[in-house]
Amino acid sequence: MKNFNFHTPTKILFGKNKVSEIGPEIKQFGSRVLLVYGGGSVKKIGLYDQVVEQLRNHNLFFVELSGVQPNPRITSVREGVRLCREHKLDFILAMGGGSVIDASKAIAAGVNYQGDPWDFPMRKARVENPLPIGTILTLAATGSEMNGNAVITNEETQEKRGMASDLLKPKFSVLDPVYTFSVNRYHTAAGTVDMMSHLFENYFAPGEGTFVQDSIAEAILKTCIKYGPIALEEPENYEARANLLWAGSLALNGLTVTGKLMGDWATHAIEHEVSAIYDLTHGAGLAIIHPVWMKYVLNEKTAPKFARMARNVWNVDDPNDLSAAEKGIDAIRKFFSSLGMPATLSEVNIPDEHFEEMGQKACVFGPIGTFKRLNADDVVAILKKAI
Amino acid sequence: MKNFNFHTPTKILFGKNKVSEIGPEIKQFGSRVLLVYGGGSVKKIGLYDQVVEQLRNHNLFFVELSGVQPNPRITSVREGVRLCREHKLDFILAMGGGSVIDASKAIAAGVNYQGDPWDFPMRKARVENPLPIGTILTLAATGSEMNGNAVITNEETQEKRGMASDLLKPKFSVLDPVYTFSVNRYHTAAGTVDMMSHLFENYFAPGEGTFVQDSIAEAILKTCIKYGPIALEEPENYEARANLLWAGSLALNGLTVTGKLMGDWATHAIEHEVSAIYDLTHGAGLAIIHPVWMKYVLNEKTAPKFARMARNVWNVDDPNDLSAAEKGIDAIRKFFSSLGMPATLSEVNIPDEHFEEMGQKACVFGPIGTFKRLNADDVVAILKKAI
Repeated sequence: MKNFNFHTPTKILFGKNKVSEIGPEIKQFGSRVLLVYGGGSVKKIGLYDQVVEQLRNHNLFFVELSGVQPNPRITSVREGVRLCREHKLDFILAMGGGSVIDASKAIAAGVNYQGDPWDFPMRKARVENPLPIGTILTLAATGSEMNGNAVITNEETQEKRGMASDLLKPKFSVLDPVYTFSVNRYHTAAGTVDMMSHLFENYFAPGEGTFVQDSIAEAILKTCIKYGPIALEEPENYEARANLLWAGSLALNGLTVTGKLMGDWATHAIEHEVSAIYDLTHGAGLAIIHPVWMKYVLNEKTAPKFARMARNVWNVDDPNDLSAAEKGIDAIRKFFSSLGMPATLSEVNIPDEHFEEMGQKACVFGPIGTFKRLNADDVVAILKKAI
Repeated sequence: MKNFNFHTPTKILFGKNKVSEIGPEIKQFGSRVLLVYGGGSVKKIGLYDQVVEQLRNHNLFFVELSGVQPNPRITSVREGVRLCREHKLDFILAMGGGSVIDASKAIAAGVNYQGDPWDFPMRKARVENPLPIGTILTLAATGSEMNGNAVITNEETQEKRGMASDLLKPKFSVLDPVYTFSVNRYHTAAGTVDMMSHLFENYFAPGEGTFVQDSIAEAILKTCIKYGPIALEEPENYEARANLLWAGSLALNGLTVTGKLMGDWATHAIEHEVSAIYDLTHGAGLAIIHPVWMKYVLNEKTAPKFARMARNVWNVDDPNDLSAAEKGIDAIRKFFSSLGMPATLSEVNIPDEHFEEMGQKACVFGPIGTFKRLNADDVVAILKKAI
């Protein structure tokens, strides 16, 4: 187990009607709020009205930034930064899923930075003195509500890149499972895949002696496997939605990666290149690519870790590591398919046209992946196997 | 799943030589330190010298309170409060196991409180405006390094009582597995039992739909079962010590109880009465009482939860809940015995002389336990079965 720091200062307010507690939480940090959200769904489910009521009841001035899209764009971030400066805002409240939260983080980082906020994902600037943010989550998937990560898309350059800073961890996050009742089948499935994929990225990572972390990852995976299908069939099943929502936060708040050098994240990097060009739902892209990546990196050396997951999570009963690993990966593919997720790029009408470009862009800072280092050719090979 | 808040602001500094990072951490909160520790073990393992060097290097003034005993006493707390006031100290650094950390919390609470610090455990006062504390942990067991709880003993009245406040959560905790290498067999075993007992207290608690929390508890239990015996045989096995140390923090930082009304804690309450009179090692007392409590509260209604743990943690293969539960409890007893822990009060020379008194004191604020409510007669019955 490697040395680590673990710090999750985000206060989680979990459960029914917890949004009624945001006023005093915000007031600890600011009084002039940028309220960030996406489309009309937060209005349809009544969340928008509840939040506005809370802000007014607590005399909190606010300005709105709406229309943040999935795969959030740097243009939205720039607009948010402009609004914060113009209105001298001092707190950002994100209301939505990962895209809205990620955009809010980039805005928070950008307000007190003199350059362009795209500098952060491009590693040209470090986050310093960001605005504090709070989140109200409406989708079980991202984990962004309890960590310092964000992924932003530059629509001009067709690039999708991550940024991270401990300073961007939200001050509080409201997790009310009821707000996820209206998430449709497709996005419920994609969200479940997304959180499972986060667990895979940290599980299949270099490092010895992280039994407790990996066992916790297995526990959260079992939660996804148990409740993902229930939430698809019974969208208003509180128990299923609650377990998925909390699982999503725990999957990516550091618990499962502490003690390792870092997660692998090659699959996410590859998926980002695909969805930067094709605007594919992130979880659907991961459902296609993650099992392909697994088979690509499976060998005698990596087999024991795949076999461990196969036995502990997927109930594979096979003493041979290599064949147990194969069966485990097949079980993952089968599970994703059972959720209605695509298994190939062809299914979502993505041709091989830009594969070389994707490979180059994925490796623009050098080889990707830590469990197995991948270069641009590897990325192209994986994409070809995903056709 | 019930509504909950989850907030673990304690920054964990985990790994070899992490003590070298305490200076800047302390300086965020104060400059005049009360350094609290127990006997000579922190000097023997070199920790004391390392800490003093760090304090001096960072120009941090400090005063020492040493001699804090297991089952820490209110007299030590009062002395600590006196020292903080006399020297105008503004930060408390606890260096040791749960007893030292718990005493430090009570001191932190007492400094700015005008009454006697025993008022906190006696529920006569609420914690307000405590001094900030940091901890350097030397024993895998307590969980106190990452939560707001403390247990204090009043040697005059022979009472041992808990106190809790979110405000008492440490600002940082250093967890260096190397400092636990010198923990002897007996205390390594008792510490392992202690953390398993914390998991049991939260697992066997009322509440439905907490699958993810209970699965995480099972993951941490499996870690204890795997590494407890290894640490006994190979006290300098870093992997074993590291997994146990982190497991101990995760077992009681809120992760396994969120979404439930609260844990059961009857077994701890009963053990506290025993060790308040006999100064028994906490973990040894728990090893005796927890399996007895389990059999006492096992019935058709509670059997499914016991059976779940039996199957998932103890590999019991029995479709009948009641008999699976029995087998699981037997496996727990057997495991504790394999660690060299006592199974009966007779083994540790505790007679039935004070059982009635223990029953009364355990229930001084009313019945105990949430999984099954127990009155004084129940406590006496459990103690008699533990003879």
